[in-house]
Amino acid sequence: MVRVRLDLSYDGTDFAGWARQPGQRTVQGTVEDALHTILRGPAVLTVAGRTDAGVHATGQVAHADIPAGSWADLCDSLLRRLAGVLPRDVRVRSLAPSPAGFDARFSALTRCYGYRLTDSPWGVEPLRRPDTVHWPRRLDPHAMQVAAAGLLGAHDFAAYCRRRPNATTIRTLTKLNWRRDPDGTVVACFEADAFCHSMVRSLVGALLDVGTGLRPTDWPIRILRGGVRDARVNVAPAHGLTLLQVRYPPAAELAERAAFTRRRRDVRS
Amino acid sequence: MVRVRLDLSYDGTDFAGWARQPGQRTVQGTVEDALHTILRGPAVLTVAGRTDAGVHATGQVAHADIPAGSWADLCDSLLRRLAGVLPRDVRVRSLAPSPAGFDARFSALTRCYGYRLTDSPWGVEPLRRPDTVHWPRRLDPHAMQVAAAGLLGAHDFAAYCRRRPNATTIRTLTKLNWRRDPDGTVVACFEADAFCHSMVRSLVGALLDVGTGLRPTDWPIRILRGGVRDARVNVAPAHGLTLLQVRYPPAAELAERAAFTRRRRDVRS
Repeated sequence: MVRVRLDLSYDGTDFAGWARQPGQRTVQGTVEDALHTILRGPAVLTVAGRTDAGVHATGQVAHADIPAGSWADLCDSLLRRLAGVLPRDVRVRSLAPSPAGFDARFSALTRCYGYRLTDSPWGVEPLRRPDTVHWPRRLDPHAMQVAAAGLLGAHDFAAYCRRRPNATTIRTLTKLNWRRDPDGTVVACFEADAFCHSMVRSLVGALLDVGTGLRPTDWPIRILRGGVRDARVNVAPAHGLTLLQVRYPPAAELAERAAFTRRRRDVRS
Repeated sequence: MVRVRLDLSYDGTDFAGWARQPGQRTVQGTVEDALHTILRGPAVLTVAGRTDAGVHATGQVAHADIPAGSWADLCDSLLRRLAGVLPRDVRVRSLAPSPAGFDARFSALTRCYGYRLTDSPWGVEPLRRPDTVHWPRRLDPHAMQVAAAGLLGAHDFAAYCRRRPNATTIRTLTKLNWRRDPDGTVVACFEADAFCHSMVRSLVGALLDVGTGLRPTDWPIRILRGGVRDARVNVAPAHGLTLLQVRYPPAAELAERAAFTRRRRDVRS
């Protein structure tokens, strides 16, 4: 078998998220089916970021273990064949054998997500409406940035996560920046070792209450310290969220990183 | 009457162009109908750039003459009301009484259009597929830039225009730049005092033949000198084209500019 790294982009609008589900149009299902058609055999994808329904990606990473014979036969044509077989709302941007020890999920160092909103009275720029949320109240990105600073570092993010049995909710948030672009769009960039389910959208929801002046700047950190999911935190809409980038260590450290991530999850689960 | 300037954006995908046509969904028809609903009376738009079916705009400008009483009653709420009434693929971004002598069409100094293509083997970034053309052959933006340089200045662009009776085809092309963006997209920026019908897309078509190596870099200028529409020039797809900006002179020069434009058209038509 050859372990192949796939870099993917998708418009999440018409997908029920990444993960394959019976009877649903999902990104994983769509790409696995396309690979099956071309390889004439099943391929299973392991992904860096399991995105929810409606969430987009421009820098998703996955891997698949492909029989060495199929790979040798098809490696020169597979990218173009996939471009022909896949629907236009999902693209495989590159395909290459991965270095030893690579695991799209467990070798990743960080995931980076973007979130886009506009508070303009006239609404969303038409060409950007698939990935930009219209916010009906004026936003103060400076206040949101002040509130965000307190959330950086390693914390138990249980207050911002949909709880799952036997899973740690401790994460290290390494970046959380808000800015207003020259065109008026309010944009956030989130980076962490990993995110729990609904974590980015819950953090956006809490910070939006700061940005509109409904809550003081220390409210999001107080919610965090509460340690339990809080009904006052709204989950921001899915379509503003895009997975932008997944970072990996140098090739020599991939296996070590994967072992470290797996061990950490065991200890804490 | 109050002459009101409207700044507009639209996703051209589902419009049969700017100009109102019976039985068709057009931008002009959609915005005029929304104004009619809110003002309880007809409003006629005059536009800076009559875009074709499928062409987008982020910087379109129009004007409408609105009864002073209606304007006084509604000026504070009109932008938000339009945002509520208009479909999401067209937006009025701003509305304001214009300085004396303003005419959206005749006062304009220049129009600026962008054109977006990708030559990647995997296709178009999914979130940008409404405004990006997939080109199946590798492009050389440097060769396209060299060819473009010869087209700058005042020329009779009849070779690149759909001919209309009694209309001049002399235009002054002030900018024509090609670049490859960091994400690989090939982007052009066109600026002229005005463009004839299908002129930008015909120029893109000729320059694409240079960019793919089918024609030498002096071919587009030789076609221009031919002075007649040439069947070898392909018209590039509409959906790669976006009207980005319309520039006007300072308020004191608006009326003079409008008179100059009208006179020039008379002389040459």
